[in-house]
Amino acid sequence: MQEFVSLANRMADIAGKIIRKYYRTPFDIDHKRDDSPVTIADREVETTLRDFILKKRPNDGFLGEEYQPIEGSSGLSWVVDPIDGTKSFIVGRPTFGTLIALCENNVSKVGIIDQPILKERWVGAEGRPTLFNGNLAKTRKCNDSDNAVIAATSPTMFEKLADYGRAFELFETTGNRFVWGGDCYMYGLLASGTVDIVFEENLEPHDFAALVPIVKGAGGHISNWRGEELTLESVGKVIAVGDPDLWPTIERVIKKSPY
Amino acid sequence: MQEFVSLANRMADIAGKIIRKYYRTPFDIDHKRDDSPVTIADREVETTLRDFILKKRPNDGFLGEEYQPIEGSSGLSWVVDPIDGTKSFIVGRPTFGTLIALCENNVSKVGIIDQPILKERWVGAEGRPTLFNGNLAKTRKCNDSDNAVIAATSPTMFEKLADYGRAFELFETTGNRFVWGGDCYMYGLLASGTVDIVFEENLEPHDFAALVPIVKGAGGHISNWRGEELTLESVGKVIAVGDPDLWPTIERVIKKSPY
Repeated sequence: MQEFVSLANRMADIAGKIIRKYYRTPFDIDHKRDDSPVTIADREVETTLRDFILKKRPNDGFLGEEYQPIEGSSGLSWVVDPIDGTKSFIVGRPTFGTLIALCENNVSKVGIIDQPILKERWVGAEGRPTLFNGNLAKTRKCNDSDNAVIAATSPTMFEKLADYGRAFELFETTGNRFVWGGDCYMYGLLASGTVDIVFEENLEPHDFAALVPIVKGAGGHISNWRGEELTLESVGKVIAVGDPDLWPTIERVIKKSPY
Repeated sequence: MQEFVSLANRMADIAGKIIRKYYRTPFDIDHKRDDSPVTIADREVETTLRDFILKKRPNDGFLGEEYQPIEGSSGLSWVVDPIDGTKSFIVGRPTFGTLIALCENNVSKVGIIDQPILKERWVGAEGRPTLFNGNLAKTRKCNDSDNAVIAATSPTMFEKLADYGRAFELFETTGNRFVWGGDCYMYGLLASGTVDIVFEENLEPHDFAALVPIVKGAGGHISNWRGEELTLESVGKVIAVGDPDLWPTIERVIKKSPY
């Protein structure tokens, strides 16, 4: 495990160096098929990390955001989101992050959230406590939804009205402590105990694979909206709760509407 | 003018010191009458800055967010938002800011946005170029709304459905480059040329007074939705546009719906 964690840390170092080079400089913005933006920084990080892994571990798979996946033969696969929160990166707001996960048979074993401008890094690994910049990260106690702080990246991520309504029902449950924006950074803050719930939809495997060991290793609950384990095959309806004792309350609210 | 700018800078230094003391530590959160949260940090910054001004300039007025205003006799008034973006402060996300403005007969003459964690500061003063950490800040050219990046703090800030619709119409105009969250920080980024439009509602004078000299001194347009000058008496419907050549296009979209 230590070898994999070291490799993931090196990948995050490489990504951060590239991202800092482009941050708050003028660059072109392209739009992908789903109309989400992509920049030269996203692409350069992904190809650089892919080449790094191909060289270091030629039998592993590689799944990024921007290019075709590489099937490996080892059963291990590196899952990378070069810049999660490209919109924040584009406007020069340091709340995006590079996500790096190592999965074995589609289940995350190692995860990193790296914010290269603030030099903040969360590292999670199965069976180990999560670290934030080398120190223990712990979710906080909060089993009373009235006192919970809830976050989601954008209201437009909820495709169906029912899901949007569900988000607002959760919002009501938690008493006006809803923070928009933030992408992966909010899961890091949840692992560090300043956010209690993150509720999101339409995430891709590269958006959530890294989050799983980080949230779990910090003592939190993370699953799909039904409470089932997230794997690379999951639909991207993701709920993270800092205090597992709060999860049953949240689950009841979510279950009220059809999935 | 230099004396006032120096005084405002000293106030921002004092505020930053208090805020850094509380950032990412456990503290109680109270809720105000409008249900927005407030912390000991908001209150301590406001009372400290109020006492500072009362001592330094006893004839000036002081308008904060949390306590009763003090009427002055000099025609000058200090307008302070101790933490703009309290929700971001609460979750430990460094995109909030302290706002300090000096107004003469209700019109802003000096404005500061200070982000004390990132140590980023925008300083604007009538007739002077805006500075970001001591260097010139300039909005960017962007007279084509297709390429514009637009920001607003939260979808829930738009009270009436018509206004929400208007926000989404603007969003459509700009082609999916909408960033949620950010509060005053987004106006700073607009002044630095990485955001093109900020469109907001339900702001209070302490939320926008400081922004006016910053956006103008960086070459941008800032006004109410009708294009009129913002003063301490304005209703808080605020639009900022980095490139003044883009303003007529934006104005046409806004005018489509009743004000």
